[in-house]
Amino acid sequence: MAKQHQSAVQPTREQDFPEWYQQVVRAADLAENSETRGCMVIKPWGYGIWENIQQQLDTRFKETGHQNAYFPLLIPLSYLEKEAEHAEGFATECAVVTHHRLEVEKDENGKSKMIPTGKLTEPYVIRPTSETIIGAAFSRWIESYRDLPLLINQWANVMRWEMRPRLFLRTAEFLWQEGHTAHETAEEAIEETRTIHSLYAEFLRDHLAIPVIAGEKTEAERFPGADMTLTVEAMVQDKKAIQAGTSHYLGTNFSEAQDISFAGRDGTQQLAHTTSWGVSTRLVGTLIMAHSDDDGLVLPPRVAPSQIVIIPVTPKEDSRDAIIDACQALAKVLRLEVAYGGQPVRVHVDTRDIGGGVKKWEWVKKGAPIRIEIGPRDIESSKVCLQRRDRAANEKEFLPKEDFIRNASEILHEIHTNLLNNATELRDSNITECHDMETFDKHWTDDQPGWLITPWSGSRQQEEEISKKHKITIRCLPLDQQDESPAPCILTGEPTSCRAFLGRSY
Amino acid sequence: MAKQHQSAVQPTREQDFPEWYQQVVRAADLAENSETRGCMVIKPWGYGIWENIQQQLDTRFKETGHQNAYFPLLIPLSYLEKEAEHAEGFATECAVVTHHRLEVEKDENGKSKMIPTGKLTEPYVIRPTSETIIGAAFSRWIESYRDLPLLINQWANVMRWEMRPRLFLRTAEFLWQEGHTAHETAEEAIEETRTIHSLYAEFLRDHLAIPVIAGEKTEAERFPGADMTLTVEAMVQDKKAIQAGTSHYLGTNFSEAQDISFAGRDGTQQLAHTTSWGVSTRLVGTLIMAHSDDDGLVLPPRVAPSQIVIIPVTPKEDSRDAIIDACQALAKVLRLEVAYGGQPVRVHVDTRDIGGGVKKWEWVKKGAPIRIEIGPRDIESSKVCLQRRDRAANEKEFLPKEDFIRNASEILHEIHTNLLNNATELRDSNITECHDMETFDKHWTDDQPGWLITPWSGSRQQEEEISKKHKITIRCLPLDQQDESPAPCILTGEPTSCRAFLGRSY
Repeated sequence: MAKQHQSAVQPTREQDFPEWYQQVVRAADLAENSETRGCMVIKPWGYGIWENIQQQLDTRFKETGHQNAYFPLLIPLSYLEKEAEHAEGFATECAVVTHHRLEVEKDENGKSKMIPTGKLTEPYVIRPTSETIIGAAFSRWIESYRDLPLLINQWANVMRWEMRPRLFLRTAEFLWQEGHTAHETAEEAIEETRTIHSLYAEFLRDHLAIPVIAGEKTEAERFPGADMTLTVEAMVQDKKAIQAGTSHYLGTNFSEAQDISFAGRDGTQQLAHTTSWGVSTRLVGTLIMAHSDDDGLVLPPRVAPSQIVIIPVTPKEDSRDAIIDACQALAKVLRLEVAYGGQPVRVHVDTRDIGGGVKKWEWVKKGAPIRIEIGPRDIESSKVCLQRRDRAANEKEFLPKEDFIRNASEILHEIHTNLLNNATELRDSNITECHDMETFDKHWTDDQPGWLITPWSGSRQQEEEISKKHKITIRCLPLDQQDESPAPCILTGEPTSCRAFLGRSY
Repeated sequence: MAKQHQSAVQPTREQDFPEWYQQVVRAADLAENSETRGCMVIKPWGYGIWENIQQQLDTRFKETGHQNAYFPLLIPLSYLEKEAEHAEGFATECAVVTHHRLEVEKDENGKSKMIPTGKLTEPYVIRPTSETIIGAAFSRWIESYRDLPLLINQWANVMRWEMRPRLFLRTAEFLWQEGHTAHETAEEAIEETRTIHSLYAEFLRDHLAIPVIAGEKTEAERFPGADMTLTVEAMVQDKKAIQAGTSHYLGTNFSEAQDISFAGRDGTQQLAHTTSWGVSTRLVGTLIMAHSDDDGLVLPPRVAPSQIVIIPVTPKEDSRDAIIDACQALAKVLRLEVAYGGQPVRVHVDTRDIGGGVKKWEWVKKGAPIRIEIGPRDIESSKVCLQRRDRAANEKEFLPKEDFIRNASEILHEIHTNLLNNATELRDSNITECHDMETFDKHWTDDQPGWLITPWSGSRQQEEEISKKHKITIRCLPLDQQDESPAPCILTGEPTSCRAFLGRSY
């Protein structure tokens, strides 16, 4: 146990959760800060997680009829101005391009110095989101109801100037997908908004092993310019909430501002109903905070860049080649024969010439779901030594190699299920019903308070007051409240069947 | 024939090649200009081509040991300044971010207007390429020879302010991949530069059906800051050259400027040798210009978003459902049973309720490699009507359905081979050896001159003079010139075994 703690990340989750998070990211070599303010470098192991998320989501988007396209990075200021609420919502965090060339000046030492020149008559902002520029394209593309629905998705980088950046969770530049769709009727657009909302919830559950609370944002928390914002909210281990994905019904707000209109079935000119929705590299931060432990990163198997890492144990030089060959042979069989989540398993053989203990702990910290060690005796007995990331780091299980090959996919799924169960238990044991103001006020004095669910009929102003007072937000209103019987609103005392989830958040 | 010409794009290649290109892009619905200066919107059919290029190249990069990562969009000016030649090379085309927020002012009508505020103490440029910012990361990551080689690739958008943009070929923002690697020795870095150069040449040949001329750039045409630039040059149908991909050996220029150093095997501190290499959405423009005809786009099968388009022919309402079912059934079988280029074939069934002629011509103009029509009689006889994009638009072939399924992959490959053969013939019949100045000068007075290959020993200044005079460039010096016997340089008359390809270019 002493050895284990030496190798684990410092501090523990209990000692200092925010610092623990930074150290997990560092120990797993996922990302690092750069000299560009608020922007991170995503390193190969972190980017590999994002590539898997991207590819798996993309398949789902295409299955539901969406097509990818690409729109300009730079948005003319005049576009942003068109929808006032939207413009105000993003104004304080926009990177602005004002010049299009540099002049090189040499200082006395002959060193080049660059001065911006070529001032633009109209500045551009780097997209914080693309409703306005994609809306302008939709306005050109849509003429008749026959052109609808128009179902477009974009994978892109966006920029929102952040004053308090945090790797993956909140960075000035981040990677995301943004879906943008246009529909003939409000019903169809709302249906699309809900479809994507469900798709996100299922993706988080089935791929990231994160059980979300799905619901609707209050008016105060809505996307700027939306009529309805649906959200999937994840609870992480310090019991804070992370808004992991949102899906917006934009009504005709953007189509009115941008003239996205069409000749309807009855021949009249009508405004399209639009939606937008997105998830980002924030999902990587979410999964880290949801699953990782005091030993480091724990990866849900479906998005792990390597699902099985094979480590040759080579105490003697003369058996080294044979052991490495056996490892490569096992990797080959696994890649060919074993699928998980509909894809061939991703196997890595770590042949680096460094100490076995160091190597093992590297993969613990990197969160590889399965580690397999093969040494001289294992070759003789045709066994492998299995270590699982959802179990204690020093727990070993010796299995006949053929059994492991046969069960590898099932073990990966077991790990997924264990992570999901743990996260579900965490979530469910940290959401409390609350019906009186005294308990409510006291609840938030806790160091790491869980969420509360309360009857709610407060006004926007009351919501803002209560949020400010306790540094909390209404995370969402559960979508289906049909079954709730009226109860007195915790604040106003008025009977209401509306419920609200409240909590601290990232 | 009259009907065919009515439906074809206007003008023809011979009438006006640049305008023909614009019309092919428009008719195939690949991309369009946006209101962001010089930036294009890549529409789904165009983006689908890029997605295939991306995915297929990515596989090759990973097979050769490279890993993806992601680096910041914005580069601090001070980074760019570090390598003087590089800085000067890109200074005139950099978009500069100078502010990080907007203030909303309302005019007398209550309309929002945005004013840039929050001036940055150090401006940023939007990456025109990422040597400097990736170099800064490499400097942090590399400590010892054990960390080498470091083989990184990034898929990203970049921006170079273009005064004369042209869809895909030259746009202010474009999508690309940029590889960046660091090595222990010059030999290893040069080997990497060559490996990627060959990979690009093979990719263009085997995936885009484009035979390139591969060679080295002269000093005048090198990447700013490189010691050696290798290039793959494509000849398109107006006989101009397109630089389709480049691979640079950067020596220790960037590692010196950015302190990318390591403790060597002998314990001394040494500078890493670096490379960079990239291809971009320009490849889409290149393949359009290489293969398309007066009917519109012609797509090389491996990168076509849909390789086979099935068009139901439904003259009567009562047989409509059965015909559509038969089309869907065929599509399903093809998707499951037929692979091309190692992947399941991509099949689209066009069930839209529009006229058959319009529909057919849409797919001609979109360049789908194979069109299959199925009508009532075809169901009875179990046949399909095959139309190939490498043949005349009205040429039909009736085949037993089972034969088509069995041969589909081979037909796709035949189409690929035909495109490649045509492009090779075009290239080879338009490169002429030239040994005297009179023929040389006269050659460039032609309206669409092909390329010349000449003995060359001119200086950089002589090269620039000759380039300016004839509006040409040395496209490249062939890589392997061992076999060339000395011949008098066309300009200086000095005996040289060096040869140069010269031509007009995009």
